[in-house]
Amino acid sequence: MGSVIKRMAAECIGTFWLVLGGCGSAVLAAKFGGDGNPLGIGLLGVSLAFGLTVVTGAYALGPISGGHFNPAVSIGLWAGGRFRACDLAPYIGAQLIGATLAAYVLYLIASGAPGFFIDPNAPGTFASNGFDAMSPGGYGLMTAFLIETVLTAVFLIVILATTHARAPAGFAPLAIGLTLTLIHLISIPVTNTSVNPARSTGIAFMAGAPAMSQLWLFWVAPILGAVLGAIAYRCLDGESA
Amino acid sequence: MGSVIKRMAAECIGTFWLVLGGCGSAVLAAKFGGDGNPLGIGLLGVSLAFGLTVVTGAYALGPISGGHFNPAVSIGLWAGGRFRACDLAPYIGAQLIGATLAAYVLYLIASGAPGFFIDPNAPGTFASNGFDAMSPGGYGLMTAFLIETVLTAVFLIVILATTHARAPAGFAPLAIGLTLTLIHLISIPVTNTSVNPARSTGIAFMAGAPAMSQLWLFWVAPILGAVLGAIAYRCLDGESA
Amino acid sequence: MGSVIKRMAAECIGTFWLVLGGCGSAVLAAKFGGDGNPLGIGLLGVSLAFGLTVVTGAYALGPISGGHFNPAVSIGLWAGGRFRACDLAPYIGAQLIGATLAAYVLYLIASGAPGFFIDPNAPGTFASNGFDAMSPGGYGLMTAFLIETVLTAVFLIVILATTHARAPAGFAPLAIGLTLTLIHLISIPVTNTSVNPARSTGIAFMAGAPAMSQLWLFWVAPILGAVLGAIAYRCLDGESA
Amino acid sequence: MGSVIKRMAAECIGTFWLVLGGCGSAVLAAKFGGDGNPLGIGLLGVSLAFGLTVVTGAYALGPISGGHFNPAVSIGLWAGGRFRACDLAPYIGAQLIGATLAAYVLYLIASGAPGFFIDPNAPGTFASNGFDAMSPGGYGLMTAFLIETVLTAVFLIVILATTHARAPAGFAPLAIGLTLTLIHLISIPVTNTSVNPARSTGIAFMAGAPAMSQLWLFWVAPILGAVLGAIAYRCLDGESA
Repeated sequence: MGSVIKRMAAECIGTFWLVLGGCGSAVLAAKFGGDGNPLGIGLLGVSLAFGLTVVTGAYALGPISGGHFNPAVSIGLWAGGRFRACDLAPYIGAQLIGATLAAYVLYLIASGAPGFFIDPNAPGTFASNGFDAMSPGGYGLMTAFLIETVLTAVFLIVILATTHARAPAGFAPLAIGLTLTLIHLISIPVTNTSVNPARSTGIAFMAGAPAMSQLWLFWVAPILGAVLGAIAYRCLDGESA
Repeated sequence: MGSVIKRMAAECIGTFWLVLGGCGSAVLAAKFGGDGNPLGIGLLGVSLAFGLTVVTGAYALGPISGGHFNPAVSIGLWAGGRFRACDLAPYIGAQLIGATLAAYVLYLIASGAPGFFIDPNAPGTFASNGFDAMSPGGYGLMTAFLIETVLTAVFLIVILATTHARAPAGFAPLAIGLTLTLIHLISIPVTNTSVNPARSTGIAFMAGAPAMSQLWLFWVAPILGAVLGAIAYRCLDGESA
Repeated sequence: MGSVIKRMAAECIGTFWLVLGGCGSAVLAAKFGGDGNPLGIGLLGVSLAFGLTVVTGAYALGPISGGHFNPAVSIGLWAGGRFRACDLAPYIGAQLIGATLAAYVLYLIASGAPGFFIDPNAPGTFASNGFDAMSPGGYGLMTAFLIETVLTAVFLIVILATTHARAPAGFAPLAIGLTLTLIHLISIPVTNTSVNPARSTGIAFMAGAPAMSQLWLFWVAPILGAVLGAIAYRCLDGESA
Repeated sequence: MGSVIKRMAAECIGTFWLVLGGCGSAVLAAKFGGDGNPLGIGLLGVSLAFGLTVVTGAYALGPISGGHFNPAVSIGLWAGGRFRACDLAPYIGAQLIGATLAAYVLYLIASGAPGFFIDPNAPGTFASNGFDAMSPGGYGLMTAFLIETVLTAVFLIVILATTHARAPAGFAPLAIGLTLTLIHLISIPVTNTSVNPARSTGIAFMAGAPAMSQLWLFWVAPILGAVLGAIAYRCLDGESA
């Protein structure tokens, strides 16, 4: 395969893995045994799963594509001076394809269980992101915007710092993935945690109209946060004036 | 000991450890204190245990045998051009011996508790893999086949990538083991998670006729997934046309 | 930015992250779904979150400021001969600003949920530290003092040892962060776990008068422990007589 | 301090940390909020805590003493040809002092909560190890002996392999500590998990007569397992005939 195609394929597979693993664990295993059954992996297990998709995906595919798996990360890396603008469209396209494919495969799998259905009006349905009536904990729009922006900003600071030339080799995928775990430990109750427009989009296609109608926030806030994080890191690092 | 015998012994011990640790935590500790008691380690603890058997086994025994502990991995590494065909039979044989021995030792241990018995018709009995009536969440054959194939394919991509010559030294066992944790976080409710024909076989010997009758799927799907993953990685990596 | 300002900014951001991530997971996610619901991340999830703030913050910001994020750590590093006395005031000031800002942002987020309020007399309210009536498990002053002192002492031994010139590169943030996870696994029931005067102070500003009135202990005990740990390590390491 | 004294001090501190952290999390936090409350860290949290004491203790103190913190490990390393017989007595003495001191400090802390007392006849009381009536899950003597022997044998294989000269630098504390986590995930229900005679002894002094009367098993089985593991690894590694 040509180099651009390979990088796009790696982004597609990695984002597929992120959505299948993170959202899959949420849909299939979080409440296993029924509400209130401690056998299920709960929010802690889902947080760990999201992080591990990036830990493992970035160790595997990072050498090929950089391992973004997230349009906000690609844009933040561009804002941080680490990624070319002309690569943004193919990367984001590949990420959206991977996320959508994963949501579809997850739907095929989940619908293999007796009694499974998607209630489009349930908060966090099919691992979708949302606010107000679609927030798992009933948090409103402003809160959702604030937390998605802040958490993505810190995410980009960690990404830019741990992939810096001076950082010790090999630890970046671990640090970045564990940051995603931490982000989920904080914010699943608020927005079901996005910080990733591709993850939100792929899932919203399956989750129904309410999730689709709130999707804009999970593009705007993470991208804003990513750019702010990149600017903050450039100041810290002294790469810009 | 001769070199081949040493490698086989390492595969036998590592697969013993994988089955004793992963299935042992499931049988002994997942529901400790009784159904619904949050003291038990639940699916999250079992997922962590399976992953840690590979993290620790691969750090320890990887330098001797490569640390496969799984026939699908051995076959996938062969399909990926990293393992010789003539080594497949001794490796798979050693893995089966280790898994069977572990299942037997686990049975000895588990039967030391008052009231322990194996109900061959219970889904996931004695940590066995299954679908339809033997699936923990009641998932059917096609779903089981799909998820085992997809998850093993990604598993092999991670394995081939993190053991690539260009990967930073020392991180492969961690990344590969955590991939197995992630795989379990997603799929225990579906098939009780195999992605490893030796693990399924050793346990099925103890779990009874229903598990034995479904064992074929946990050979076919993981091996198919492993080969597909190896092919995908060769395309990504540019090692093949 | 000038070098001192950059280092202070890094400490401010890192302490912001520690308090937002650690205390945020406690306030937003620990009891998600209501008391007794195993969906919530519990003390285990909170312990993991606190540790991951340091793992990720130290990988990201350690190269800039050293990654203290904690006045007791700064003082302990000074006592250990690794940090200049003249840097103590700017570092501690930056840490307090970051912690206070994080507590305020966390309040904004938490108050976005219906029915949220802070009961100043509830033990551990808004993730505050306390003893006697403010201890999550009802532990008294002497016990609180003892455990905060002992745990901070070991924390400093780990920090001084893993940042020693002879230590393998890259593992210090992981070891130090996981030490903070372990410290929380032990002591949340006793004091809600401080070992960090900045974390206690920022949160106490929001938590109300009872937390403020007990704040002194979470300056005195961690700093005493940090100095004792530094002295112990210098004896072990042979850097002092 | 002299070199021998420093190494003994490091073993004492490390074993203190292992018992305070592992047993402390069990006594203080495992069932926080009362039986059946999912806020408590459960067996999963205790397993993680035990492992993290070794991860962090070995990163910190390993360069000084080797980081055994366990008489069975010291004896197994001697059997594996990595440790001098004349160092066994001072190491084991230091480990026993550290474990006993930790058990005493833990008693001081735990008794700071209202209503705390030690029931010497309760299985696993004060984090003690036991079998028959003292086993958390009611497992008998033979089962306890079997599992302690097997798990310590694998523990030593991991230790000997990951500290081998050919192993990548820096990963041994992580692999060894996570092995201890895995061992606990499997076996807390059986014996409350020892694999460490010093940990069992220090705690038994506080736990009362029933724990003391069963203490012999937690010396004999771990040491037997450690020696068997060392022999097995020497065969695998080709260091012996």
